[in-house]
Amino acid sequence: MQIAFIGLGNMGGPMAINLVKAGHSVKAFDLSQDAVAKVVAEGGQAAASALDAVQGAEAIVTMLPASQHVEGLFLGQGGQSGLLASIAKGALIIDSSTIAAATSQKVAQAAQAAGIDFIDAPVSGGTGGAIAGTLTFMVGGSAGQLERARPLLEKMGANIFHAGSVGAGQTAKICNNMLLGILMVGTSEAIALGVANGLDPKVLSEIMRRSSGGNWALEKYNPFPGVHENAPASKGYTGGFGTDLMLKDLGLSQENATAVKASTPLGGMARAIYAAHSIAGHGGEDFSSVIKMLQKQG
Amino acid sequence: MQIAFIGLGNMGGPMAINLVKAGHSVKAFDLSQDAVAKVVAEGGQAAASALDAVQGAEAIVTMLPASQHVEGLFLGQGGQSGLLASIAKGALIIDSSTIAAATSQKVAQAAQAAGIDFIDAPVSGGTGGAIAGTLTFMVGGSAGQLERARPLLEKMGANIFHAGSVGAGQTAKICNNMLLGILMVGTSEAIALGVANGLDPKVLSEIMRRSSGGNWALEKYNPFPGVHENAPASKGYTGGFGTDLMLKDLGLSQENATAVKASTPLGGMARAIYAAHSIAGHGGEDFSSVIKMLQKQG
Amino acid sequence: MQIAFIGLGNMGGPMAINLVKAGHSVKAFDLSQDAVAKVVAEGGQAAASALDAVQGAEAIVTMLPASQHVEGLFLGQGGQSGLLASIAKGALIIDSSTIAAATSQKVAQAAQAAGIDFIDAPVSGGTGGAIAGTLTFMVGGSAGQLERARPLLEKMGANIFHAGSVGAGQTAKICNNMLLGILMVGTSEAIALGVANGLDPKVLSEIMRRSSGGNWALEKYNPFPGVHENAPASKGYTGGFGTDLMLKDLGLSQENATAVKASTPLGGMARAIYAAHSIAGHGGEDFSSVIKMLQKQG
Amino acid sequence: MQIAFIGLGNMGGPMAINLVKAGHSVKAFDLSQDAVAKVVAEGGQAAASALDAVQGAEAIVTMLPASQHVEGLFLGQGGQSGLLASIAKGALIIDSSTIAAATSQKVAQAAQAAGIDFIDAPVSGGTGGAIAGTLTFMVGGSAGQLERARPLLEKMGANIFHAGSVGAGQTAKICNNMLLGILMVGTSEAIALGVANGLDPKVLSEIMRRSSGGNWALEKYNPFPGVHENAPASKGYTGGFGTDLMLKDLGLSQENATAVKASTPLGGMARAIYAAHSIAGHGGEDFSSVIKMLQKQG
Repeated sequence: MQIAFIGLGNMGGPMAINLVKAGHSVKAFDLSQDAVAKVVAEGGQAAASALDAVQGAEAIVTMLPASQHVEGLFLGQGGQSGLLASIAKGALIIDSSTIAAATSQKVAQAAQAAGIDFIDAPVSGGTGGAIAGTLTFMVGGSAGQLERARPLLEKMGANIFHAGSVGAGQTAKICNNMLLGILMVGTSEAIALGVANGLDPKVLSEIMRRSSGGNWALEKYNPFPGVHENAPASKGYTGGFGTDLMLKDLGLSQENATAVKASTPLGGMARAIYAAHSIAGHGGEDFSSVIKMLQKQG
Repeated sequence: MQIAFIGLGNMGGPMAINLVKAGHSVKAFDLSQDAVAKVVAEGGQAAASALDAVQGAEAIVTMLPASQHVEGLFLGQGGQSGLLASIAKGALIIDSSTIAAATSQKVAQAAQAAGIDFIDAPVSGGTGGAIAGTLTFMVGGSAGQLERARPLLEKMGANIFHAGSVGAGQTAKICNNMLLGILMVGTSEAIALGVANGLDPKVLSEIMRRSSGGNWALEKYNPFPGVHENAPASKGYTGGFGTDLMLKDLGLSQENATAVKASTPLGGMARAIYAAHSIAGHGGEDFSSVIKMLQKQG
Repeated sequence: MQIAFIGLGNMGGPMAINLVKAGHSVKAFDLSQDAVAKVVAEGGQAAASALDAVQGAEAIVTMLPASQHVEGLFLGQGGQSGLLASIAKGALIIDSSTIAAATSQKVAQAAQAAGIDFIDAPVSGGTGGAIAGTLTFMVGGSAGQLERARPLLEKMGANIFHAGSVGAGQTAKICNNMLLGILMVGTSEAIALGVANGLDPKVLSEIMRRSSGGNWALEKYNPFPGVHENAPASKGYTGGFGTDLMLKDLGLSQENATAVKASTPLGGMARAIYAAHSIAGHGGEDFSSVIKMLQKQG
Repeated sequence: MQIAFIGLGNMGGPMAINLVKAGHSVKAFDLSQDAVAKVVAEGGQAAASALDAVQGAEAIVTMLPASQHVEGLFLGQGGQSGLLASIAKGALIIDSSTIAAATSQKVAQAAQAAGIDFIDAPVSGGTGGAIAGTLTFMVGGSAGQLERARPLLEKMGANIFHAGSVGAGQTAKICNNMLLGILMVGTSEAIALGVANGLDPKVLSEIMRRSSGGNWALEKYNPFPGVHENAPASKGYTGGFGTDLMLKDLGLSQENATAVKASTPLGGMARAIYAAHSIAGHGGEDFSSVIKMLQKQG
């Protein structure tokens, strides 16, 4: 299949390469020439621009930083017309960016008017999952659109969830990541409280993991150094999912909560805590480093 | 073995009966005659008083409501001398009450001075676990003391964790339950936010359960009615673990955090939320009913 | 002066009438005919549309519900062109709506390109202040623009603050109202805690008012019924500033905090609390009724 | 009058000296010989022990760090009998320590049984107020007991509030200081948010001070450096009221809230924030330095 891939960062790059490896013809674009070169090295083609990339494409995959980039790309901005005008009728857009659900819905509506399918398909699983092709996709769109996309998604991911109609993938992702942000702070608090009382963090973590406090952080991503050998906490809080990325997702959850008048006390608190952690200079560290806010180090 | 069992409530009663069924000689005491009668009906003996119960006992198991009851019972209060003076040297006390770690340590120190072993062994698993004999014990005491207690604990529970020295069982329990309180509010927020955006609570719950938001509440105890057939949420928030019990445990965690100068932002917030929920009249409902604070019902 | 006034609700209506009473020629528009009629009854003129209102106007005052209304009105929406194209070069726009600072800046930029002055001038002081002409204006714009506006602002308000360049009025207002939301919850907590300990709410309020806990709520707007005779709390939480309006302003503060990556733990928490209070059915009551969340009534 | 003064720290020392200066015979005791010497230098007498100090005293004033010190001193501890046994019948105890209300009540009850009056009279106003004799006293006890104490309190303070029966002084103080902790964090958030949007902290502070965000911190103790010349913020956060002291008072408020099952969401959050601030190494700085958690410095 002829595929355009736009946005080749730490996540998008490996995803595009997995599509190339699966035998697809992938025309790739990014503002960074180096990023394009990596895909070309694996057998992809370089596009001179986003407009060039979508020429003749049957499917377009995008992986961009924020709402305004997706809206600007497809709908245009600053007097420049958007890509929708140049994409072939009947094509399928898979947007894997993590953005506001309202933006997904706005672009999808314009796409539909132009005879183009648009689904939101944000991912979880990190750069490791992007490289291994084991990402989780949370998809918003019709069942039929998801089935169109499935063959491509399966080359990039291992779990594909149908969250609901367009925008629902974004909502599911921010709900999940809000909960993850809460789990990580809560788990950090619990361990820090135990350690302040003289408990061994490994012993306490194991007790809670097997009890009603059990959660993903205790299972796979313990914030206390040395409990999980391969977790970022045991590697100086490098790798993994950065504090500033968690802060962005928690910001999206709070914008959404504001829009629908939902009450998210712990989600709001988690955002404030990660914001303070970022202000203190830890924005580039893995988000599990938030335990430093709660426990004296060294 | 000759066992005294003091405190025969919803948890203590079935625990005492399991010891009876295992062939032990159990002399049981409670302020409620009915509670004593139930144990007698299963083959236990009635004690006329706590003092009567401990006469000649090799092991004493206690299951009492709060710190002051445990301290008063063993160390005395209001001019009345405590049970320690009447317990045989060399006996073993297993206190399964959920109380302040500092109280456990205070009583243990006095017991040690009297030549008596004392371990704290609070439980999780609810009344169902107490009846089935599948409780989880979190034990604070020496390894040797735990081994002394193990044959009895195994008749009442399925999982026995050695948390550390005396008091550590209490600390592990309040850390776990603080985390549980946070998980339940956080999970409720995430589901309520999704539903406010039009997502199906079952679909969203399943996505998060299998993603990085995964936790015990999503696994076994979903707060949204109808997602888990057997969870309290699907039975009008009856059964399970009451809001006021969660409030008590979160209070213990906050007292402990204050004592050791720990920072527990989400734990403190969870306590305030359950307190408000109780003030609104939901103290007797299962603690997962806290989702009502965050989502319009009906 | 020839003035167009658009948006004649509980606030805008009395403000327009004060301009009429000061001798200005005011052409007024609102979607509600009744609202227009009230201004006409005081000597204003009815405009058939917003477009009609601004014909020949030297100054345009707007008082609209939210960002999208202000942006839509001036910049156009849904294919319809905005008012800026029809406003005389050299005119002055005073927008007293409470909206996002970013929207104020966007509209101001377009106005400037069209040779029109635009300042943001949100108010505080409630409907009472609007009627009495004692509002507080927080103005964003150049010093020269403020001086142009001052003669009109002085007819509607008693305090005029120059917060900074365009958008700064909005920012100052949401900072102030975020703090107000926090003060009210914090004051409610402190009183509820004292009362739960048997203290007299009047005595405690007076002690804190004269000590380091002193704040505007204790001074003028006590949330406990009966402490301030004229406060909404003493009138069944009617009148005053509604819970849902406070929720809107706290939402604006959280959107802004997200945009600039600020950490506002108590502001976020206050928003979640007012949201839960609104979900519980108190959205239409005065915002000081939030004390009901923290204290059993009756 | 013959007065015993026990506890001569930063607060107690100057208070004792003010009693000396007023012409009273003051026998002073502290574990620090230096502290005693300072009072002696002003005309007081040195006591060899607390027991020595109270011999023949008509009034006893205490200013001790925490609940256990007051309870231990008067009721005894570790087998040692308390001072109550040695104080003359009919004497008056004024305890100005900030401790748990429950402890005040416990000691008062024992004092009453021994024919001794006991009132709690914690203070606010800092070391400056202690030296100047302008402290605020919040008194718990009967009206008659307060009148007995008033002549002494007036030598040490400028404002004397009768909060209610014994313990009420402590409750009023922790309610006030909980609110103060909230005000300071909330004010810091609001200023930090404004500054992040480009506003001038002085201008914004002045606007809020004169609007509905007005509070004691904006009036006298602005947390942003340079706004109030004499505030700790303008002196490197030295002087004033230390973070760890605020943390202690917030801890007392949370213990109290737990005991009476009150909901204090912002108070709990403020405690967690000050705890994190202390963990980060700022425990010895003035409590207004908490703004550092919310705003990048330098």
